[in-house]
Amino acid sequence: MTLTVLFAASDANWAEYAEPLRAAIAAAGLTASLTREAAPQAVDYIIYAPTSPLQDFAPYIRCKAVLSLWAGVERIVGNPTLTQPLCRMVDPALTEGMVEWVVGHALRHHLGMDRHILNPGHVWDPSCPPLARERPVAMLGMGELGTACARALAALNFPVTGWSRSPKQVDGISCLHGDAGLDQALSQAQIVVTLLPKTPETENTLNARTLALLPKGAVILNPGRGALIDDDALLAALDAGQVGHATLDVFRVEPLPPDHPFWSHPRVTVTPHIAADTRAPSASRVIAENIRRGEAGEPFLNRVDRGRGY
Amino acid sequence: MTLTVLFAASDANWAEYAEPLRAAIAAAGLTASLTREAAPQAVDYIIYAPTSPLQDFAPYIRCKAVLSLWAGVERIVGNPTLTQPLCRMVDPALTEGMVEWVVGHALRHHLGMDRHILNPGHVWDPSCPPLARERPVAMLGMGELGTACARALAALNFPVTGWSRSPKQVDGISCLHGDAGLDQALSQAQIVVTLLPKTPETENTLNARTLALLPKGAVILNPGRGALIDDDALLAALDAGQVGHATLDVFRVEPLPPDHPFWSHPRVTVTPHIAADTRAPSASRVIAENIRRGEAGEPFLNRVDRGRGY
Repeated sequence: MTLTVLFAASDANWAEYAEPLRAAIAAAGLTASLTREAAPQAVDYIIYAPTSPLQDFAPYIRCKAVLSLWAGVERIVGNPTLTQPLCRMVDPALTEGMVEWVVGHALRHHLGMDRHILNPGHVWDPSCPPLARERPVAMLGMGELGTACARALAALNFPVTGWSRSPKQVDGISCLHGDAGLDQALSQAQIVVTLLPKTPETENTLNARTLALLPKGAVILNPGRGALIDDDALLAALDAGQVGHATLDVFRVEPLPPDHPFWSHPRVTVTPHIAADTRAPSASRVIAENIRRGEAGEPFLNRVDRGRGY
Repeated sequence: MTLTVLFAASDANWAEYAEPLRAAIAAAGLTASLTREAAPQAVDYIIYAPTSPLQDFAPYIRCKAVLSLWAGVERIVGNPTLTQPLCRMVDPALTEGMVEWVVGHALRHHLGMDRHILNPGHVWDPSCPPLARERPVAMLGMGELGTACARALAALNFPVTGWSRSPKQVDGISCLHGDAGLDQALSQAQIVVTLLPKTPETENTLNARTLALLPKGAVILNPGRGALIDDDALLAALDAGQVGHATLDVFRVEPLPPDHPFWSHPRVTVTPHIAADTRAPSASRVIAENIRRGEAGEPFLNRVDRGRGY
């Protein structure tokens, strides 16, 4: 039987994914027609990104799963017409890229690299940074990405405290949860990494109150979602020196608008949503594996819990 | 019996080390007089840095070992009056600091951070770097420090080739040696780290010929010794774009003279010999352990092989 797999995403996505998806589907032993147009009632699986105009999932009566190309599903999870199983993208290459960005920028701030990269006065100041073991890190969000980043930082001796809304246990990482746990994690952190999913509960996790809990001069790294941080509160904390620097990869509006104050703030580094790029070959293998599972009656990988929103 | 331990280093070294050394010696169960002046024939051990004027070791007829505060011993190893056992400093904190510097700057160049840190035009260019697994690294020098850095980079998925003058085997690292091995390691490396000891054989390991073997645009990280690189050849390779960037922590003359072209070269980052600072508390414990070993008749840690020069 030939499956009908609808690719619902942008032209650019199609150019990037068509070949890797066909290869991965074939390698999984499946026979499928990968298409950008099909009668809704004939579709077995939808591969989806919010770059597609598709909003009404009701006519896809035979569809066994909607497979997101994106890790974040906040633009689709609340859609009332979406009753089919929804799976997030958890791309192993995405995790690797995220670990590289987080570890790289954590070490950049830890080592004080910027004062050497930008040293117009040619100052030779051999004062030495502390060791990583003396630099506490708070990892807000201990999902797939947060846990991988926490482990990589701990392997470099950073004392890492992981925080999540619900309790977690991870070897080698001291884990806290709940509101009191968040306050405790922040009160000790010289570097804070925000890798929470975007849900109504996580919006503005870093706000005027929580930023004030940090030791003065702490650094924020946000490769998660723009909405995790209250921008105005962050700018005020940066202006006051309460936050020493913020390196931000994600924003409420992207590309970051040219007149946004983050661009020119001396204590902000903007990176253009590159911390975790999904890579077509590895993401395609994840999609194909989920189609294989659907056909074999096995549980899907990375299925979204709509109650939690991720 | 009270040992006489001569501290032969600068006033600044004394201010930093007197207390940690006394504490470490006591913790090792030894009774010693730690002093900056003693009759040479009464001295049991010399703690030494080249910041001391001491050059004639011949009168120290009872001295059982000269314990260097520095990892590099090139300024003392050739001294013909030094017939006592000589031990290098291998400070565990020094290794940690070195790993942090090397991994941090490797990730900085790998991720292309500088174009985000310095982005006066506020350009949003979401082109994504490759993964670390696609970025080959050559580690020149596979001693204590080189091996630790190679392992940390490999743990982040960088494909690391280790090179040393004599053959080595290290799990997870592809190791090459000898002249042909050097050429092979360099011909594939997008990032080269120089962590060789300074000996007559390693001087100018990176020179016009070997720099030309690199893939165009490769990055050099030198936290080892200034003399490992031919400065003029490096500047020419940087001007030609053959070397994309050099981040240098060590120099033939330190502090780097204000008129040195490295300061203002757009493809050079100068860090002020901070990659591996010896930390007094942990270094003092290593010194005390070697005194304990000397008194117990056990082999010294990190004893220098004068034939090799390190």
